[in-house]
Amino acid sequence: MKKYLYIIAFFLIPIAAAAQRPVPPHSPEVHADDRVTFRYFHPDAKRVILDGEFLSSSQLMAKDATGLWSITVGPVKPDIYPYSFLVDSVQVADPNNTYLFANERFKRSIVDIPGSVPLVHSLRDVPHGKIDYRYYKSATLDTLRRALVYTPPGYDASGKTAYPVLYLIHGGSDTEETWTKVGRAHLIADNLIADGKAVPMIIVMPYGNVRPDPMPSFAQDVVNDLIAFVEDHYRVLKDSKNRAVAGFSVGGGQTLNIGLTHTDKFAYVCSYAPYTATEEFRKNFSSWSPDGNQINNRLKLFTISVGTEDFLYESVKQNISMFKEKGLHVKTYIVPGGHTWMNCRLFLATTLQEIFH
Amino acid sequence: MKKYLYIIAFFLIPIAAAAQRPVPPHSPEVHADDRVTFRYFHPDAKRVILDGEFLSSSQLMAKDATGLWSITVGPVKPDIYPYSFLVDSVQVADPNNTYLFANERFKRSIVDIPGSVPLVHSLRDVPHGKIDYRYYKSATLDTLRRALVYTPPGYDASGKTAYPVLYLIHGGSDTEETWTKVGRAHLIADNLIADGKAVPMIIVMPYGNVRPDPMPSFAQDVVNDLIAFVEDHYRVLKDSKNRAVAGFSVGGGQTLNIGLTHTDKFAYVCSYAPYTATEEFRKNFSSWSPDGNQINNRLKLFTISVGTEDFLYESVKQNISMFKEKGLHVKTYIVPGGHTWMNCRLFLATTLQEIFH
Repeated sequence: MKKYLYIIAFFLIPIAAAAQRPVPPHSPEVHADDRVTFRYFHPDAKRVILDGEFLSSSQLMAKDATGLWSITVGPVKPDIYPYSFLVDSVQVADPNNTYLFANERFKRSIVDIPGSVPLVHSLRDVPHGKIDYRYYKSATLDTLRRALVYTPPGYDASGKTAYPVLYLIHGGSDTEETWTKVGRAHLIADNLIADGKAVPMIIVMPYGNVRPDPMPSFAQDVVNDLIAFVEDHYRVLKDSKNRAVAGFSVGGGQTLNIGLTHTDKFAYVCSYAPYTATEEFRKNFSSWSPDGNQINNRLKLFTISVGTEDFLYESVKQNISMFKEKGLHVKTYIVPGGHTWMNCRLFLATTLQEIFH
Repeated sequence: MKKYLYIIAFFLIPIAAAAQRPVPPHSPEVHADDRVTFRYFHPDAKRVILDGEFLSSSQLMAKDATGLWSITVGPVKPDIYPYSFLVDSVQVADPNNTYLFANERFKRSIVDIPGSVPLVHSLRDVPHGKIDYRYYKSATLDTLRRALVYTPPGYDASGKTAYPVLYLIHGGSDTEETWTKVGRAHLIADNLIADGKAVPMIIVMPYGNVRPDPMPSFAQDVVNDLIAFVEDHYRVLKDSKNRAVAGFSVGGGQTLNIGLTHTDKFAYVCSYAPYTATEEFRKNFSSWSPDGNQINNRLKLFTISVGTEDFLYESVKQNISMFKEKGLHVKTYIVPGGHTWMNCRLFLATTLQEIFH
């Protein structure tokens, strides 16, 4: 059967043994009024439920006589949302949606509701940078590792212009692709650069999950291996005032660990909903006695962002207090919403407008 | 629950409401002797079946007392294979495997069995090129389209060296990422270039599915828009002797349509298991009366490859006969195996060693 999948799926015409296979349903179908129809074909399922981050609660889908389950929801606030189907007791990505949430531990789809007004992450007809998929050698981890590198429109590897660099770290169980596939970091940068709101910069997105090694080796990998690789292969500015680190969730904790212990290397430290219940964080900060003035002088910007419905909200507030008690100038963005990539994109859009000016 | 997925999946420690969530199983686990263990956690499933292209038939997995389903298979011939689980009646990708088959219509995982001897697609410690993710404007289709562009090790956008270009097209319902995510085209090129078996080249991988428009508009997009974009943005050689087109399945049919009707532009046409039951193919070739000598003189290489177990084998043989009857020199590779990406990788490896010499 699988040998026929290509043809059947593409041409929608009956061939050989797959003659009974139905036309693949269109899912998700985003309507002009921001309602969305989801469809899933399964004649034998007893129950199909839609679970999506645009819903306040999961929704039962309805089956028609052909075995096609569907539901129309909304209007939904324009944004990009993760969702999945629960088919009887099995969680699945939408088989007819190309766009998946890049993650090591769950398989969900993402739906893009563009709305009528371009959003900060929309694909617009502006000059576009590109994303390089690269391997770099990590002496720290004794392996080849992957990283994605966004270069802005007009970037010329052999030109005279050198660029500042943002190191941008994904959440735990995400991958090096999550900041582009889900976060649309490249489009956010393209748009803000086109609008004159962000300076052209390079954005480096490494793979942050170091297993089975403990977390600190990732910090060493970034500081010792990744930065050197980037400086060897891209035209970049090499002083701390032209280097930033940011990240979400586990990556937000890594951002604090990497940035605040290397203020000689990073003048911008921007942490989104940081997860900090780690041995590395305790080691770095529980009995930390920093020279607050020195750090404040070195850092041009230190921000912590979090949503009030984030399950880490209380923890993040405690960390903000801790850093303030130690005398650090920390700028905070407390916004509505949870531990979501909808908020992540907004946090990044804010950061891109604040750094390297 | 979903808000906790990140943390739980990464730290494997009980937090809040997710305390009962088990440690994510390791799947797939590839053993040193090329056996592979697959695991899937689902206490409530009545039956879990492993379906993989390394199996002659689907295999029932066994459940332990904790609700973890597993099976060990093999030894399996080292290669990269698609697989999925059938959980009761629902087909799912392996939730604990990061690597997915890039496709619009099915969600399957891929397992990499490296073996003890490096394969043509293995990640080796050789100089690596990079893959650019780019947007280009298609006047033909009046939209921004995505394409991936592999540049070889040492590529310098502003240097003196210009490179030949291979346009490489995926199968029907695949995406512009399938040739790298599943086909490992970039690693095959890195390895063959490092071994002196292929010349450094640029490989352009467009998105071949043009919907709802008929197929011919993709050919126009490639010839009119994509080539111009590549020539504007990369240091490339612009004569037909430095331009090749290749593709698999639906993309193999597109390869014939694009290449053989534009021998002024492509001196290399390499088609893998082409699907040709299309209106475009009929229009181009059913009453075609080519000047065989002229085409043979223009083409430095015209190949058609197919496996003897491919469901398109008979159709491909008929097309080979048809092209021979029309006087064309066509080199054929008839190999064991089916309509698979295992064969695709080998077809590409052969092509890369044959073009641009």
